[in-house]
Amino acid sequence: MNKNRRNFLKTAVIAGSGAMIYGCGDRKGQSASVHTNLTLEWKMVTAWPPKFPLLGESAEKFAKAVNELTGGRFTIRVYGAGELVPAFESFDAVSQGIAELGHSAPYYWAGKIPSASFFSAVPFGMNTTQTNAWFMYGGGLELMREVYGAFNLIPFLTANTGGQTGGWFNRKIQSVNDLRGLKMRIPGLGGRIITKAGATTVLSPGAELYTNLERGVIDALEWVGPYHDYLMGFHKIAKHYYYPGWQEPTGVIELIVNKKAYEQLPAEYQAIIKYASQSLLSDSISEMFLKNQEYYIKLRDEEKVNILPFPDEVLAFLKEKTNEVITEITSADTFSKKVYESYIQYQKKFAEWYSVGERNYL
Amino acid sequence: MNKNRRNFLKTAVIAGSGAMIYGCGDRKGQSASVHTNLTLEWKMVTAWPPKFPLLGESAEKFAKAVNELTGGRFTIRVYGAGELVPAFESFDAVSQGIAELGHSAPYYWAGKIPSASFFSAVPFGMNTTQTNAWFMYGGGLELMREVYGAFNLIPFLTANTGGQTGGWFNRKIQSVNDLRGLKMRIPGLGGRIITKAGATTVLSPGAELYTNLERGVIDALEWVGPYHDYLMGFHKIAKHYYYPGWQEPTGVIELIVNKKAYEQLPAEYQAIIKYASQSLLSDSISEMFLKNQEYYIKLRDEEKVNILPFPDEVLAFLKEKTNEVITEITSADTFSKKVYESYIQYQKKFAEWYSVGERNYL
Repeated sequence: MNKNRRNFLKTAVIAGSGAMIYGCGDRKGQSASVHTNLTLEWKMVTAWPPKFPLLGESAEKFAKAVNELTGGRFTIRVYGAGELVPAFESFDAVSQGIAELGHSAPYYWAGKIPSASFFSAVPFGMNTTQTNAWFMYGGGLELMREVYGAFNLIPFLTANTGGQTGGWFNRKIQSVNDLRGLKMRIPGLGGRIITKAGATTVLSPGAELYTNLERGVIDALEWVGPYHDYLMGFHKIAKHYYYPGWQEPTGVIELIVNKKAYEQLPAEYQAIIKYASQSLLSDSISEMFLKNQEYYIKLRDEEKVNILPFPDEVLAFLKEKTNEVITEITSADTFSKKVYESYIQYQKKFAEWYSVGERNYL
Repeated sequence: MNKNRRNFLKTAVIAGSGAMIYGCGDRKGQSASVHTNLTLEWKMVTAWPPKFPLLGESAEKFAKAVNELTGGRFTIRVYGAGELVPAFESFDAVSQGIAELGHSAPYYWAGKIPSASFFSAVPFGMNTTQTNAWFMYGGGLELMREVYGAFNLIPFLTANTGGQTGGWFNRKIQSVNDLRGLKMRIPGLGGRIITKAGATTVLSPGAELYTNLERGVIDALEWVGPYHDYLMGFHKIAKHYYYPGWQEPTGVIELIVNKKAYEQLPAEYQAIIKYASQSLLSDSISEMFLKNQEYYIKLRDEEKVNILPFPDEVLAFLKEKTNEVITEITSADTFSKKVYESYIQYQKKFAEWYSVGERNYL
């Protein structure tokens, strides 16, 4: 900046009332926003064990953000699964207003909302960047709000696990035949798909997974990714760790808000919920990516885990079964069809651009 | 949820003071946050023409977010480049307190801060997901704050252009020889690198690029990506559109805050700056990804643009020159060496995990 210009600018600022205007009354602003001094305390139920790494922590971060953003006026008490209601009752609890907020994964609600699986992750579907773009600018979030609205809920995106891994196996998967008779813990769409491929799925609560794998009650399981998997200790009892996480190329985590309670909030607090949840999206993606990387290297180099890609033949077979399961869902439920049509349209277009825009990484 | 449990829960809520506690006085909260009713008006200077798609718009969105989050108490007036100070004087303007806030790209300040290029994008470096992880959890932002601190500035991440494209060329690039004598508009590290590869760089303001390419003052240029490039109309005058954007595999956009002004803010408003800027990160990445995809298809299918990948030989040569330029920068400036060592360490580790975690897309 040349000296004359700098002096001119300084003078202009001194002449022009200064940077800060203190006061309290009405005043010309860029909008008709109205400030509130309301003090408020809300409850948040979560689908995660208390202090669950990253996801439970992200729920706590949300409460902290809301507290900081309101100078302590709006506080949120976070309950781990089982502390107020069990994990899988958090949807009903928020819907009924027992808690105003919930923190969970959409596919847990597939029993009530068949399309919910498509809002979590689609096997062989879009990755995190693509999924966020579909939600935020491709109409995904509007569709989710439409179907959740009938349950008195407003969903927001608030975190993401990133691409997951394929899971831990006690037998090698060298061909499609090796899936037959496999007893695997794999929930959601992945479970339906692998059943079609000849495996049996076993539902085990998280706390029993280690023992079940050790004792041969199951032959395989998928949990999250290297970070969470390491903390569970699966590398101590499983022989092979497979990738890619075909069943969950991303993992959407939702904040659900009781609609009636939300609509009664002052606009300022509605904005706080919106921006606080959105701010944690890039935070969780970044933390997860870094931690998964760190623990992936730890598993590979320190624990000498046998990390293997699924054979192409196996992936092609699972993809075929994925299409069958998606057809079943979209034939049985009109809204699922609408959601999937939107999803697949963007998946195709995004894949074309990805191969150019992310060419450096392909 | 079974009926007994539901009734139990409802009773518990009714008995237990209800969800909302209205009031104003002191009260037990989850932190010692103090609320402020301060009314404040700040100025933001930007490096973008007024209403510049996505980036100027993101600056406006930040002002809107702050306004909404404070119920109109904290307003920000956004100035396009040239409206208060020219684009490349926004750093000084914020440093000196002429404006409290700035919205720009770090590499514009490489003349003052040699390491700033590494905070923008490193040619053949990390993509957006990886870059955000390095900034937010790998120490990148701390390093940036350390070096900006000497200029009375606190930087925040607030937007990202995503991976860019390689640019528009009026001659085909079939070998390293085709770079010799090329007159190209390409700023930053990319410009230094391509000069080493035998090209000449020409600095043209954005407004003159179209005419300069049309009249042969330049043979080639790179701007942003399909969305911004389409709006500039380059497809009407250039023959070939190349990818990948080796020079900018991501494009970090910063919010810079005058440090003294920031430190005088109540904690509540400091939090608002932090969360509002962070919330726009995933917003901009999503919008950019979707728009680039849309305009990429438009350029390819409607405008019949000849879209070509750079030959591997050319990319390998540019990578070699990139290493030379980075060595020059890190040898001349100790802090740049420190930043790059942190950067490259994460780049290597992230690449290993990416090939597993994003295997679906490779």
